[in-house]
Formats: sequence, structure tokens, C-alpha cells
Amino acid sequence: MNFELISTDSASSARAGVLTTDHGVINTPIFMPVGTVGSVKAVTQEQLRQDVKAQIILGNTYHLYLRPGLEVLSAAGGLHKFNGWEKPILTDSGGYQVFSLAANRKIKEEGVVFQSHIDGSRHLFTPENVMDIQRTIGADIIMAFDECPPYPSEYRYAKKSMELTHRWLDRCIKRLGETTPRYGHEQTLFPIVQGSTFKDLRTISATEIAARGCAGNAIGGLSVGEPEQDMYEMCALVCNILPADKPRYLMGVGTPWNILENIALGVDMFDCVMPTRNGRNGMLFTWNGVINIKNKKWATDFTPVDEHSPCFASRDYSKAYLRHLFAAGEYLGLTLASIHNLAFYLELITEARAQILAGTYTAWKNKMIPVLKTRL
Amino acid sequence: MNFELISTDSASSARAGVLTTDHGVINTPIFMPVGTVGSVKAVTQEQLRQDVKAQIILGNTYHLYLRPGLEVLSAAGGLHKFNGWEKPILTDSGGYQVFSLAANRKIKEEGVVFQSHIDGSRHLFTPENVMDIQRTIGADIIMAFDECPPYPSEYRYAKKSMELTHRWLDRCIKRLGETTPRYGHEQTLFPIVQGSTFKDLRTISATEIAARGCAGNAIGGLSVGEPEQDMYEMCALVCNILPADKPRYLMGVGTPWNILENIALGVDMFDCVMPTRNGRNGMLFTWNGVINIKNKKWATDFTPVDEHSPCFASRDYSKAYLRHLFAAGEYLGLTLASIHNLAFYLELITEARAQILAGTYTAWKNKMIPVLKTRL
Repeated sequence: MNFELISTDSASSARAGVLTTDHGVINTPIFMPVGTVGSVKAVTQEQLRQDVKAQIILGNTYHLYLRPGLEVLSAAGGLHKFNGWEKPILTDSGGYQVFSLAANRKIKEEGVVFQSHIDGSRHLFTPENVMDIQRTIGADIIMAFDECPPYPSEYRYAKKSMELTHRWLDRCIKRLGETTPRYGHEQTLFPIVQGSTFKDLRTISATEIAARGCAGNAIGGLSVGEPEQDMYEMCALVCNILPADKPRYLMGVGTPWNILENIALGVDMFDCVMPTRNGRNGMLFTWNGVINIKNKKWATDFTPVDEHSPCFASRDYSKAYLRHLFAAGEYLGLTLASIHNLAFYLELITEARAQILAGTYTAWKNKMIPVLKTRL
Repeated sequence: MNFELISTDSASSARAGVLTTDHGVINTPIFMPVGTVGSVKAVTQEQLRQDVKAQIILGNTYHLYLRPGLEVLSAAGGLHKFNGWEKPILTDSGGYQVFSLAANRKIKEEGVVFQSHIDGSRHLFTPENVMDIQRTIGADIIMAFDECPPYPSEYRYAKKSMELTHRWLDRCIKRLGETTPRYGHEQTLFPIVQGSTFKDLRTISATEIAARGCAGNAIGGLSVGEPEQDMYEMCALVCNILPADKPRYLMGVGTPWNILENIALGVDMFDCVMPTRNGRNGMLFTWNGVINIKNKKWATDFTPVDEHSPCFASRDYSKAYLRHLFAAGEYLGLTLASIHNLAFYLELITEARAQILAGTYTAWKNKMIPVLKTRL
């Protein structure tokens, strides 16, 4: 994997870059649609390529390990072959899901024992087997196995958890070094900065993570319920410590305005379920603000969500029709809202990159954020 | 509307024709995907055009009247404008839905009083207002308001019901003659033959319907639970009476083999929820037989459902991936199965037409039916 920094904003820490993987090139900053169990919910791979214009998607280790399982993924030749997505894939390590979804999870130095949320079966995740699982999934970017503490966490707990995450990281690095890619393409580890909302812990964690010299770095444990200002403060602090010549990935963030603010702090990569999950609940993000398409006020609005969009879902269906699909519980509503939101996120981040390259990012961002937040 | 008969099979009553409407040309025999509330479930209009290659779709008067309602449809300029489907649309009259879905329905000479299955609100459908509603929806082909008796029905009930349907038909014809299309394009009425599984009633009904001299005719009240042989017998009897120079539409039928058999009896048009509804339950129809994609046996079958298909959903995803999507409850499974099945139905009927034109239909049909029925 190679990361080339193309341009840095003079008035902020925003950067434009190019990340090259064996499955293709990613222009940063980038938003990565979430395909938890090997499918971005309600969207075909053709739509992801042609309409959303996704450059990289996510998979999730916890979910893919449970279903379809390693035997199937291994026989398929990895997730790219299994789901037909030939561009880059990043897999989350499953740490977050083990803590948020699985039952009776027990954290030990060795790893985490947990019960599947699907059938209650018992499993053990360790830094070593999570690396092995991600080798089998075949992701281009592999996330370290970490503990993501809840918000709020007590200082003592956050510190202990962070230290465990660091020890687990060293075991991840060791294991990856002892194993080789299974499908011929390079797989790159991103370690994860933790430390909750404590500045000194975030400083320690970012310093530790940076010292490992990995090809890219991630910031975890944010957007888990803390005030937005805390998120920005932690992100700024961490970005100042993480090396400038490596991509920085802020996990699980967020709204369009969260993304623009964090780009200004030096983040290059984002993922979030918001465009798809909120889309399935009828929330549409647009260049003019946020639409609740279930609202009665759209019942006879026959204009499209975005007439200038290159995406059919945004341009070729009216708000009135979308509202009808949601009112009638039609699957097509979920699909169109998901595609619209994802296409918008990609358009937004593509425009952000253009503004960085033009040297106009900060002014543009400050003008856009109140507009994006408007409730229409 | 114009119907031109191009070719008739020498060994059966199968016909190939061209039906021309103001929204475009339909090659018959044809299968019409069902878009009950203005959306073919889980399929975009783009996919219907490009991948399914649908030439005409259905809407349903009962459902569209309740949601989005006439005010919205009228303001939109009709269903074509509302849902963005620019090719022909046929609307079922809602008679079947009133009897199968609505609560406390009461049939009188005037029409049917019923309660909405959505909110219990009370409504009255008469032959007159059902014509008016279909004028407002703007369908190219409008179905007469009929009563579809259940199977089995007693002879007395079936006769009484059929006679009511005939009286209602005359009121439909009168009302349509007194009103004009609202959106500039022609709207053509198809009356419906009823008579349950009683030969003499079907003979009477087909004779009565034929005598009205409408531009096309439909056969209703079949595929409602009767044995397949009864369906074929009734269909053959009715097709022999309905004029040969008008298109014949068999409502709500059916499996791929039902369609091929009924084409041989002289049917030109079909609709059925089976490809979409059964698709959403994991049943895939293919050139080699029927697949239950939920079956464990497909878990590591990495071949596509149909590698020779021009349709991406059939060709670009493996059975193993589809099985995984169904096992994990992913929306994408519903979409891919629906598109595959619809594309297959359209490919099948397109091939049937080619065989009719080549003079080889009957031999081809007899060879295909056992293959299509095979459980894979």
C-alpha cells in the first residue's frame, strides 16, 4: 500500500491524497460505505460502482466470521470474489461488535470469549485469530483487534482498556508478520488509537500507535455518544501526533458536517452506517440540508431530491414518490434512500477534495456546514 | 391501441403479436411484472428497463386508491409521471383485492362497500368510480370492475356472480364512453371473463364478453386454487370463444410451465406476483429448473444462477453469495432474486415468441416444461 499526499490546506489540516492498494486507487479524503455482512444494505454492487461511485467498502470481521463463516469465505477465495466487489475492502476487526452485540462477552488478557448474537454459540476472539480471520476474508486493509470502551468511561477503565488495546496491537503485528496473504494481494494493518475522551490517554495512545510505524492509522472510540466538541478535540489532538505521511482513518463518523470538520482536523478516511441506516428510516442528506421524507409535507412535492445529481436515485424520482414508498412500506424506498445518501456522501467528499486542491477548503467548509445542518 | 397478429403456431393455438399503445409497443406473448402500489417490489425502474427488460408493468387500483390516493396521483399527472415508468401500464380494477384483502366488504348491485385493510376507513367501489379512478391513475389498459369468486364456488353463486360482473361491465363501458383520458394518452378497457370452473358458465361469459367488442379481453378467476388441469380446460374453452384478432390476457398466472401451456392455448398476456413474491422467499426459476436458494446445498456453490444470462443479477452473483444474503436476512437477496426471476420470465416469454415465429413452439414447449419443473 502506498499513500501519497497531494495537497494540504493552508488554513486547516485538511489534506488531499492518493492511497494505492492492489485492488485499486482511492482518492482521499474518502468515505467508505459499510457492507457489514458482505453487502451494503439494499444496494447492489453495480449501483455501488456506477451510481454511488464508491472507491472502497467495509466488511465486518465479527459478522462475516459468523455468516457466511470462514469455510465459505475461504472456499470462495475471499470476500472480493464472494461478493463480486473488485475494488478495495477494509475490514473492521470485530472488536466493536463483540462489545456491542455479542452476549456474555468476557474480556481477558488472551482475548474475548463471547456468545453469538445469532445462535448463542460460544467463540473466542484473540488478536491472533482475528488477524487470521481477516487474512481469510482477504481485506486490503485490516484493522487491529481493539477494545472500544463505552462513553462515558471512568478514567481507570479507559486507561486499562487502552493499555490492553496496545498489548493486543503488538500481538496483531506479530501475527501478521508471521503469516502471508492468502490470495496474492497485499493486506495492510491499521492500528487504532483509543483513550476515550481523556486528553492524556489520547496523547499516550496516539504516541504509542505512531511509534509502531504502520502504513496507516485509525482513531477509534469516538462518535460513541460523547459531545461533538469532545470528538473534535480528541481528533485534533490525535491527528497532531499521528504521522502526516500516513493516512488517518476516523472510525464510525458520521454526519456530513462531522465529516467536513474532521477533514479540517487532518482525517483522510471515514466510514459510517448513517447514510444507509438513516436512509432506511427516511432521513435524506442533501446539499440543502436534511429531509425527513416520511413527512406529510413532501406528499405532493414532485421535484427530485437533487435535480443536479449525477445519481439516478437522487435525480429521477420525486420526493412525493419517495414519501409514498416509505408510507407504503415498499422496499424500493430503502434502496433509493440508501443509494441517494451514499451518492451524496461520495459527492460531498469528492467536492471537499476538490476544495482542498483549490486551496479553498476552509471557507467552503464554513459556508457549507450550516447549510448541510438545515432541517428542510 | 392496436393489436397485430404476426404468427400462429400450426400445432397449437400459440400466437405472436404486436400490441401498440401510446406509451410504446409490446411484443406478445408478454409477461407483465406486478407493481401493486406503483413499485415492482425491491426493483428500481432502471433495473426494470435495463435488466428485466419489462415492456409493460401492472398497477393496482385498490392499492393506489388507498395509497398514495387520487389527490396525489392527479397532482402528479398520473402514475407514469409519479413513478417514472414511461412504458405502458395496465391497472387491475381492484375487484380481486377488495374481495381478498378488505374487511367487512359487502357486495350490492351498486358496487362494493369495504373497509381499508390499512386503516379500516370505509369506501365504496362501483363500476363507475373504478373507471374514474383508473382514468386518474392513467393506465394504458384499464380492467373492468368484476367479482372474482373464490375456488371452489357453488354453481349458483358462480352464476350469480358472473351475471353481476356482466352487468357491471356494461356500466364500466358506459362510464368510460362518457369520460375522456386525463393525460392525453389513450386508455383501453379489457373486460373479464368469469364463471369459475363451470364449462357452461365460462361459455356464456366468454360469449357475452366477446360480444362487447372490446379491444382486448381478459380471463379472470383462474389460478385461485383450482387444479391445473381445470385451469387449462377453462382457458382453452374461453380462448376458443374470444376473438382471435384481439389480445387475450390471463390474469394472475403463473409458474413458467403454466405460462407456456397457456400460451399454447392462445393467451397473449400474463401477470403474476410469483417471480417477485416467491423470489423474496428464495425460490429462483431457471432454465434448468427451480432452486430453493436457502438450501444448505448452495452454501459453497460459487457458480452463478445463470452464467449465460444477459442479466447481472443472474450472471454476476454466485448461488453461494445469494444463499448467504438470504441466510443473513440482507435486503440485497430480495432485490437480486426478484430481478433474476423477472428477467428469467421475460427471457422465457421472449424465447417462446421466437419459437412461435420459427414454427417450433409446441415441440419446444413440450421439451421445456419437464425441465422447468425440475427441483434442483
